[in-house]
Amino acid sequence: MQVLEGAAARAALTRSFDEIPVPDAVLARIEATFGEALSPEQVVERILADVRARGDDALRDWTEKLDGTRPEVLAVSGAEIAAAQVDEELHAAIRLAVARVRAFYEQQPAHGFLNHTPEGALGQLVRPLSRVGVYVPGGLAPLISTLIHTAVPAQVAGVQDIVVTTPPARDGTVHPAILVAARELGITQIYRAGGAQAIAALAYGTASIAAVDKIAGPGNLFVVIAKRLVYGQTGIESLPGPTETLVVADDSADPRHVAADLLAQAEHNGAEPVLVSTSRALLVAVQAELSGQLEALPEPNRSWARDSVLSRMKVVLAADLNEALALANLYAPEHLCLLTRDPWSLLGQVTRAGGVFLGEYSMEALGDYVAGPSHVMPTGGTARFMSPVNVRDFQNIISVVGLNASAVQHIGPAGAVLARAEGLEAHARAIESRL
Amino acid sequence: MQVLEGAAARAALTRSFDEIPVPDAVLARIEATFGEALSPEQVVERILADVRARGDDALRDWTEKLDGTRPEVLAVSGAEIAAAQVDEELHAAIRLAVARVRAFYEQQPAHGFLNHTPEGALGQLVRPLSRVGVYVPGGLAPLISTLIHTAVPAQVAGVQDIVVTTPPARDGTVHPAILVAARELGITQIYRAGGAQAIAALAYGTASIAAVDKIAGPGNLFVVIAKRLVYGQTGIESLPGPTETLVVADDSADPRHVAADLLAQAEHNGAEPVLVSTSRALLVAVQAELSGQLEALPEPNRSWARDSVLSRMKVVLAADLNEALALANLYAPEHLCLLTRDPWSLLGQVTRAGGVFLGEYSMEALGDYVAGPSHVMPTGGTARFMSPVNVRDFQNIISVVGLNASAVQHIGPAGAVLARAEGLEAHARAIESRL
Repeated sequence: MQVLEGAAARAALTRSFDEIPVPDAVLARIEATFGEALSPEQVVERILADVRARGDDALRDWTEKLDGTRPEVLAVSGAEIAAAQVDEELHAAIRLAVARVRAFYEQQPAHGFLNHTPEGALGQLVRPLSRVGVYVPGGLAPLISTLIHTAVPAQVAGVQDIVVTTPPARDGTVHPAILVAARELGITQIYRAGGAQAIAALAYGTASIAAVDKIAGPGNLFVVIAKRLVYGQTGIESLPGPTETLVVADDSADPRHVAADLLAQAEHNGAEPVLVSTSRALLVAVQAELSGQLEALPEPNRSWARDSVLSRMKVVLAADLNEALALANLYAPEHLCLLTRDPWSLLGQVTRAGGVFLGEYSMEALGDYVAGPSHVMPTGGTARFMSPVNVRDFQNIISVVGLNASAVQHIGPAGAVLARAEGLEAHARAIESRL
Repeated sequence: MQVLEGAAARAALTRSFDEIPVPDAVLARIEATFGEALSPEQVVERILADVRARGDDALRDWTEKLDGTRPEVLAVSGAEIAAAQVDEELHAAIRLAVARVRAFYEQQPAHGFLNHTPEGALGQLVRPLSRVGVYVPGGLAPLISTLIHTAVPAQVAGVQDIVVTTPPARDGTVHPAILVAARELGITQIYRAGGAQAIAALAYGTASIAAVDKIAGPGNLFVVIAKRLVYGQTGIESLPGPTETLVVADDSADPRHVAADLLAQAEHNGAEPVLVSTSRALLVAVQAELSGQLEALPEPNRSWARDSVLSRMKVVLAADLNEALALANLYAPEHLCLLTRDPWSLLGQVTRAGGVFLGEYSMEALGDYVAGPSHVMPTGGTARFMSPVNVRDFQNIISVVGLNASAVQHIGPAGAVLARAEGLEAHARAIESRL
């Protein structure tokens, strides 16, 4: 375990969104699939253009090519949704997660204002978006929680028309747990489509899937690139990609918990956990814990976690908690876990993170499911300027100007002066026509 | 004047952001500048890559090539800012605009929350971004108001570090009115750079200009493309491009005001004003007014306005105000002007617009300067999912999870069930290690 300090730590935690390396395995898969060495951007551009041109047929073709199943019927039927079942324990957990996330977002202030004065009224309307697409990634297991953590803030925002896309399994089905969660959410529009092809369908529309106003939800490299490329044509909430966690721990932290939290990150294939500690003794103890807990994990999680820990984990020794927090802000992690003696005293220093998890009972794994805030948070350093999925992502502000003659008498002449200074004579005259 | 109705009107007001046509004059200028027929995207990609690679030198080269002046010193000095002067009438108008916009945004709710329960605390921190770039377009006159209408919401949000870029005049100076406005705002970082090269500098940083966390402000086609391409590397607030206005007028509207408001839109070179009316008589009266008011405009505004009116203005006859509002929502205009008998009764039907201007004394031209709300509003149909520049654009939400042992006892088991359903064993164990 290489321990970084000072300038080396700062360099290791400085990152550029555009320079996130593409894993060799991804490039190899592209070459195997396309018969030539394309960049991920080129792949996505091809898929977007094809779905835009050919609609559902292209969507089926790409799903067959990339997901290994051809969804002749893209929409999941009401009967399929109604018939989906999971065991009662999981069903109850889904209900709890929906309730917790909903209760959290119902607290978010998201109202407009309208202020009347003798000169009229000025304000902001806050309106829900008309139609939103929720992207739920596939992978080896159903990401039930991602559906809940993306759709609920949209529902709280007041969006009436929510459509879900998620890659089908090889047998063409969508996992019953996803369908049960959709049923609990009252969502009826679910389509068998994943990857860039799903983003294309949501952005441009097809015969089966009407275009949406905004696409939300996390995804892999191809989904992130696709969202970036369709932005403008449609809205996107942010660019959440592979998950990431930075743990700040002092000498009071329990090495078992630190190791457990790092492994909960490391078990994501390709993850890059970061540990910043003020205690060299803790770093040593965590290393011993990591080895033991790693061995106890089942496959394939063990292999992925081991690879993350051995190949990509970053371990930093900070001079003090101030430096630790400065490094965390520099990295701008999706998840910032504060396993320190007095985590609340550090909160004011946190300027860049998707979420802050304070103390040993606020483990990030709990936040992924049932704590309340959405687990869809900014990654790749975008927490410098982006927020976790939240109610605002699904609402527009519309400015309201309702002034009267006395306002125009008061401020109109200054407006005309500014208009003429900008060379806009007809603007000045439009104002003066009311004076 | 061709009057559109029904399906033809709907077709004419349906638009796709990706399919906004590039004017021939722009393509001709690209070919003249680059010696080959490049798309605007290709031009912007070249400029971004060059500024990223060569920094200030590239910024100077592109400014020389595209703006006709070589800014050896990119930063405007404190002495230049201090020395700038405008006449007292304009200075007072600048002060009024700053005060009005500030007073408006100080009313915007933009706070977080933190809710303590027996199981701990959950909430959202709302933090200002660290460093923001404000892009102020150039053109034939100083866009004083754009600086004010973009920077003030950032200041109200609490952003400490605001940097302005604006293309220099051919003599290398920045217009004194811009500098006076910056002085009134307390902004000291101003750089002589415009176009895609300025966006590149703000996104990637150069020796002179440190990279920012977010870039805000409107621009021409190249600026919009550049913002779209750097998004992710840096934040952007939205994609505001050429300004646009849709006027809804019934038989109560004064044709003089309707014509004046349309001309205030039409005098922007290349503008595409839209008039939707329920009254054929009004349409006829407005046409007569347009001719007269057009002739009275000075050049070059008259030529531009005439070209906009004759070549691109869309005129729609709606069956009733419900259809008129539905067409407005379909178009999703930057500015929606309601010149009707009872405009407030229509406000609830407005779902997609940057700003709504109600009645004859709320002319959009006033909103451009001194009404209060920012004039930087979504264009190109992006009002379907974007908002005017506002305080939220300059703040991040950080989710806060601070639970205690009793919360983990209560919700931890459900979290572990969900984690295992998603195949994330180490997540489940991280939760259970605290049970």
